[in-house]
Amino acid sequence: MTVPENMQALTQLLNGYSGTQTGPNISDLTPFVKHSTVPVPTPGAGQALIKVSLAAVNPSDVHFIKGEYGQPCVKDAPAGFEGVGEVIAGDTPLVGQRVSFYARGAGTWAEYALADVAGLVPCRPDLAEVDAAGQLVNPLTAIAMFDLVKDSGADSFVLNAAGSQLGKLLIAMGRDYGIKPIAVVRRENQAAALKELGAAEVIVTSADDPLSQAQKVFETLSPRILLDAVGDQFTADLFFAMPPRARWVNYGKLSTDAPVLKQLPQFIFQHKEIGGFWLTEWMKQVDPARIPQAFGEIQGRFTSGKWKTDVAGIVPLSEAMDKLPAVLALPDGKAFIDPRA
Amino acid sequence: MTVPENMQALTQLLNGYSGTQTGPNISDLTPFVKHSTVPVPTPGAGQALIKVSLAAVNPSDVHFIKGEYGQPCVKDAPAGFEGVGEVIAGDTPLVGQRVSFYARGAGTWAEYALADVAGLVPCRPDLAEVDAAGQLVNPLTAIAMFDLVKDSGADSFVLNAAGSQLGKLLIAMGRDYGIKPIAVVRRENQAAALKELGAAEVIVTSADDPLSQAQKVFETLSPRILLDAVGDQFTADLFFAMPPRARWVNYGKLSTDAPVLKQLPQFIFQHKEIGGFWLTEWMKQVDPARIPQAFGEIQGRFTSGKWKTDVAGIVPLSEAMDKLPAVLALPDGKAFIDPRA
Repeated sequence: MTVPENMQALTQLLNGYSGTQTGPNISDLTPFVKHSTVPVPTPGAGQALIKVSLAAVNPSDVHFIKGEYGQPCVKDAPAGFEGVGEVIAGDTPLVGQRVSFYARGAGTWAEYALADVAGLVPCRPDLAEVDAAGQLVNPLTAIAMFDLVKDSGADSFVLNAAGSQLGKLLIAMGRDYGIKPIAVVRRENQAAALKELGAAEVIVTSADDPLSQAQKVFETLSPRILLDAVGDQFTADLFFAMPPRARWVNYGKLSTDAPVLKQLPQFIFQHKEIGGFWLTEWMKQVDPARIPQAFGEIQGRFTSGKWKTDVAGIVPLSEAMDKLPAVLALPDGKAFIDPRA
Repeated sequence: MTVPENMQALTQLLNGYSGTQTGPNISDLTPFVKHSTVPVPTPGAGQALIKVSLAAVNPSDVHFIKGEYGQPCVKDAPAGFEGVGEVIAGDTPLVGQRVSFYARGAGTWAEYALADVAGLVPCRPDLAEVDAAGQLVNPLTAIAMFDLVKDSGADSFVLNAAGSQLGKLLIAMGRDYGIKPIAVVRRENQAAALKELGAAEVIVTSADDPLSQAQKVFETLSPRILLDAVGDQFTADLFFAMPPRARWVNYGKLSTDAPVLKQLPQFIFQHKEIGGFWLTEWMKQVDPARIPQAFGEIQGRFTSGKWKTDVAGIVPLSEAMDKLPAVLALPDGKAFIDPRA
């Protein structure tokens, strides 16, 4: 395949960290990325060049382009962590094959991207493009965090932002493994769909006194793990309402609250703990054999219908500056960028 | 030895938990305990009766009598967790010997107390009474928490309330094991003595901008463990100023602050954690062989002068209602109750 000299991309405007904490909402991309024509990147040692066929847009991407993520912005480099495409070049037997990948050095919101060859994930032919484009961040996070749930030995677990893509993956896993999901959501109108999906209980934070409802739930179910993408005061209150030995696992910050720890002695007398989860760190720490095994499970779950990707919209790269914010603002489903259009 | 029918004791006035969180200060004992004449308790199965020769007064005792500790008050039972005395009765080869013990069912602020025979700690003859009376709670906590420091692999650790008895034990251990103590205290006039004892750095929270000072310290030293008896906002800020992989280990609540978590994403991107330490729990979880080994080290440290007990005062049991609060209010040293007077 002939590789052109230049390509279109959404490139970063910031450099380093911004020092702000404004959350994952975004109504205007123009302060953070611009639509550019840039040279197609050249793979270095251990890297592959990939022709992107579909790129995912995750909350972590939005945090990242704002300079609010765990790694610094690089001005003028294409943004976008995750996508699917064909391997064009690189020292790997996967050249010519369709792979899911996590970009490194040149992002997926572009016609071509770079990735470490060691991290390329071959895709089953029957795996849909939207499932393939988003199979690293959310599904692998779901598998990894569900390992914490299984290890807790409890018969239930708590998750918030339960209507998110990741939330739905986790609820389906709870359903399939027989560990009851206690789903926390903001809006009442999300409750029925999540119960149908497999949530044992749904706590609606906009309802009257959701904490009392949670306390009642904890009288019958005894979750140990709280998977938290929100980080607000209600999450802290929920954690202290949970039974002894609860662990609050923070993996996202949808809220800009700075939560107050109202019942510190529970750390002592109830052996409670707060920690975080970061996929990047998990991949460094986990037994390497767990990762291909996890992708086998992920692709099996998608192709068998145990998981599905809800699509909010697929935006052409050429129109993303204008159209992406509206798609991201939709209450359900995931946004994608099509770099071929 | 003939055991009398009755004895004097400070008995609890509350029952269960109070639901308050007022901290370990106490200016008046009368709402919580009273000087009473009560029957000498009878040991049950697996218990020993001990003639108390000296009882310790710890912050946990004050929390406890206020109904603010991890176990409920029992109205009319003698208070006091810790002490030293002679074993009078019980199914144990230690009858007739001097032991340190943790009371169970009938407390140490009394002429006679009960303890589980399994928990009796024989005392070396050369161990001073004040060291023996207080060798369970503080010294064993110091040994157990210092295991966390050693396991962290760091070359330094942070502790607050560093001028407390426990703080001094920890600083001396840091000195002896070559792991630099970073001591946090409230008052400038504590700094010199703690440096002399072995603190590598002293951060005075009443000084100008102690957080900047801490940040400077963390540029050269890289502690992983924060041993926290205070639980205030400065502790939370200090935790977030610590290097990646820091663990905040809360074991006391000298402050009534409800600290705010201002930098939640550090749980994700810096792998930070908050947990607690409770000696009662540690004793259940630890390899049982660690405990006699720890008491060997404790008694060796006291008798060799590596540790010393600073005595604020020894109050006769008969005068404790009046005199104990003033001794507890002294800035340095530990209070004891002499039940023979």
